[in-house]
Amino acid sequence: MKRLAMKAMLAGAALSLSVGGLAQSSAPLHSPADARILATIKARPAVKAALAALESEHDQWVDTIVALTQIPAPPFKEGARAKAYAERFRAAGLADVEIDEVGNVLGLRRGTGKPGGKLVVVSAHLDTVFPEGTDVTVRREGNMLHAPGVGDDVAGLATQLSLIKALAAGKIATPMDILFVGDVGEEGLGDLRGIKHLFREGKYKDRIAAFFSIDDGSVDGLTNGGVGSKRYRLTFKGPGGHSFGAFGLVNPLTAMSQAIVNIYGIAVPASPKTTYSASVVGGGSSVNAIPSEAWLQLDMRSESAAELAKLERAVLAQVDAAVASENKARSTRDGAVSVDKMLIGDRPAGMTGADTALVRQTAAAYATEGVAARLSFSSTDANVPMNLGIPAITISRAATGGRGHSLDEWIDISPRESLKVKRMDLLAILAAAGLR
Amino acid sequence: MKRLAMKAMLAGAALSLSVGGLAQSSAPLHSPADARILATIKARPAVKAALAALESEHDQWVDTIVALTQIPAPPFKEGARAKAYAERFRAAGLADVEIDEVGNVLGLRRGTGKPGGKLVVVSAHLDTVFPEGTDVTVRREGNMLHAPGVGDDVAGLATQLSLIKALAAGKIATPMDILFVGDVGEEGLGDLRGIKHLFREGKYKDRIAAFFSIDDGSVDGLTNGGVGSKRYRLTFKGPGGHSFGAFGLVNPLTAMSQAIVNIYGIAVPASPKTTYSASVVGGGSSVNAIPSEAWLQLDMRSESAAELAKLERAVLAQVDAAVASENKARSTRDGAVSVDKMLIGDRPAGMTGADTALVRQTAAAYATEGVAARLSFSSTDANVPMNLGIPAITISRAATGGRGHSLDEWIDISPRESLKVKRMDLLAILAAAGLR
Repeated sequence: MKRLAMKAMLAGAALSLSVGGLAQSSAPLHSPADARILATIKARPAVKAALAALESEHDQWVDTIVALTQIPAPPFKEGARAKAYAERFRAAGLADVEIDEVGNVLGLRRGTGKPGGKLVVVSAHLDTVFPEGTDVTVRREGNMLHAPGVGDDVAGLATQLSLIKALAAGKIATPMDILFVGDVGEEGLGDLRGIKHLFREGKYKDRIAAFFSIDDGSVDGLTNGGVGSKRYRLTFKGPGGHSFGAFGLVNPLTAMSQAIVNIYGIAVPASPKTTYSASVVGGGSSVNAIPSEAWLQLDMRSESAAELAKLERAVLAQVDAAVASENKARSTRDGAVSVDKMLIGDRPAGMTGADTALVRQTAAAYATEGVAARLSFSSTDANVPMNLGIPAITISRAATGGRGHSLDEWIDISPRESLKVKRMDLLAILAAAGLR
Repeated sequence: MKRLAMKAMLAGAALSLSVGGLAQSSAPLHSPADARILATIKARPAVKAALAALESEHDQWVDTIVALTQIPAPPFKEGARAKAYAERFRAAGLADVEIDEVGNVLGLRRGTGKPGGKLVVVSAHLDTVFPEGTDVTVRREGNMLHAPGVGDDVAGLATQLSLIKALAAGKIATPMDILFVGDVGEEGLGDLRGIKHLFREGKYKDRIAAFFSIDDGSVDGLTNGGVGSKRYRLTFKGPGGHSFGAFGLVNPLTAMSQAIVNIYGIAVPASPKTTYSASVVGGGSSVNAIPSEAWLQLDMRSESAAELAKLERAVLAQVDAAVASENKARSTRDGAVSVDKMLIGDRPAGMTGADTALVRQTAAAYATEGVAARLSFSSTDANVPMNLGIPAITISRAATGGRGHSLDEWIDISPRESLKVKRMDLLAILAAAGLR
């Protein structure tokens, strides 16, 4: 998960923020009716039994975090962790457990409705940002666990397992089926490929009524806005040649530099927040040679799909203009500069309105623990359904922590806060699955 | 070798060019007396036998080129090729074959003079510009060989071996010793370290009377002027940050791009030829992060020390201006962009006068084959002795070709032209070693 910007403190404060052109109201997120629904759910004996099970299972939750963190899951290499996670799905009693075509782990919990009807997806992602060979040994100091990936998103994977076991312990019967997912490719160049597959080609794709991603590292986080992004690898090629002998020939690195300068002249709106970054470069092979190739990884993001598309057009036009200007400025005798534009990332923007039942009831679930839900924009698996207009949010993974995406990542597994979040998450999912 | 500029067509034409402030005369390069010396040498039975040996050995010369090209010799990693080359020195009968402290391959051919007297150095360089992992497989099409490094300077290494074998075949006794060298670090960041060592610390350093580098890719090339160069590694640093969250902060990569654009706007004289090249870049760690560092390797050269100094001042001023403009254009809230300018290459300029015996007799050797020596400026191993006032030139490596320093490098191994050059080179070396 990439949490980015706190967008609104909505704990009943009388402020109103316009975000991405969409007004998020300061009116209470949940209505008294929502609060009543959640109170009814929480009062059921089966739910009480499930909530008690969460408590007695806390140590197993910690053990699961340690065990899963220590199975490396580098980008595009989630297989070993997926296999272990599928075994835990089976042990927890889910039906139809499988690893799908792209590597997602799927497991169904049948409800009382007709088979094949609408369902709720609950998910956490298997992959980390860390390359192969990273030391993923977990170090425990009191209530702190330290290891790369221990929070993002192993804490989510472990919380999901705890919820599944609690539902089983309480023998809770929900009207809708719940599909639990451990998905691949959430991070970086994974480009949300696991969840894209689930919604575009997966066998459950036409049944999904609501979507939860368990991937927020704070107690009160409730991500309902998805920042969209487009990422390119731009490769500039030219004839190359001797730095002295061939002086005067076009240089692809000069074209790339001109492109970066041009791009950094593009004006973007502060709201809806829209950004670009010339992030990674390489090229050339020797100090005494005009390079034959130079490349740039470029990141563009926006809270608005329209602004993102506009930025993308402007950026690509500036890239073409830079290439043309280099071919005009120097000799193309041995060949001209050309550019290859490869799209390496495409995360759709989207939003689940603050007034949808999913957001309102989840906020009401948070409120049962005295937590004021804090809406935010982010870039998570939930972007995909948000973009399709399917209600989707990202909720807390139950372990607060810090230094995500760094080797110093840590989480706090204190029972008090963790259990609070697991209870909130359970109630929110039950409400979405139609329990009353 | 970096052959650069044809400076004067000196085949008796009545023109005079002023080069880098040094006038090169159009008077015939060699005198009738020089021509007589060369005729005498060529008429010796031992020399005739050596010249015949060159002819019968042509196919082995080609095989040597293929074999040595296919032993990678990236910058600073010439070891494997050096070992193979030393073995060939031994097989060809040289004495005192060794690999010295910096990696040069040395082999002595004793003359008839007193041990420890003056000697002539003949050299070709082992290193290429190509990084590790470059495919160096040689592709042959008729008389053309294609591969990175096949000409520069493997053709020189192979020609040197052919000359050693021919001297042995003819049992030629020269007054002076000849030290044959396969040297390291001629290219790029090698900064002539092999030949600098030979002249500054090597055990033969006080004995060298004349120096040949076999590293010119044309039949008629005779490099007697050394182009000076300055090379920098410029490292731009900034605070870095999240591509979306920290948008608006200064970007060191943008500063570097602006610097490159600025530098490519600097006007330089065509004569004395003066050039620059933005050659190699790197920086950044993740597509979703503003980089905290970007770096550039920059090459500057001139036939004139004064123009080189002027260019260096202008380039460094543009770099500073680009950094200042980035710090003005974006936020320095978390830190400003700074630049570290590290000098990584400094090749001295120098010249061996057209009227020295070495140049005159070599031109006379060329003339025995009807070739009019073409004096040129370049940046080669010969820069080092030129700068010390020791007569030094760079002569043809016997295989004409093109696209040096590119992956498309090729040479023409047609026997007719190649043998002509090998004969010229042999006679020139014999004259310098005192044979009459």
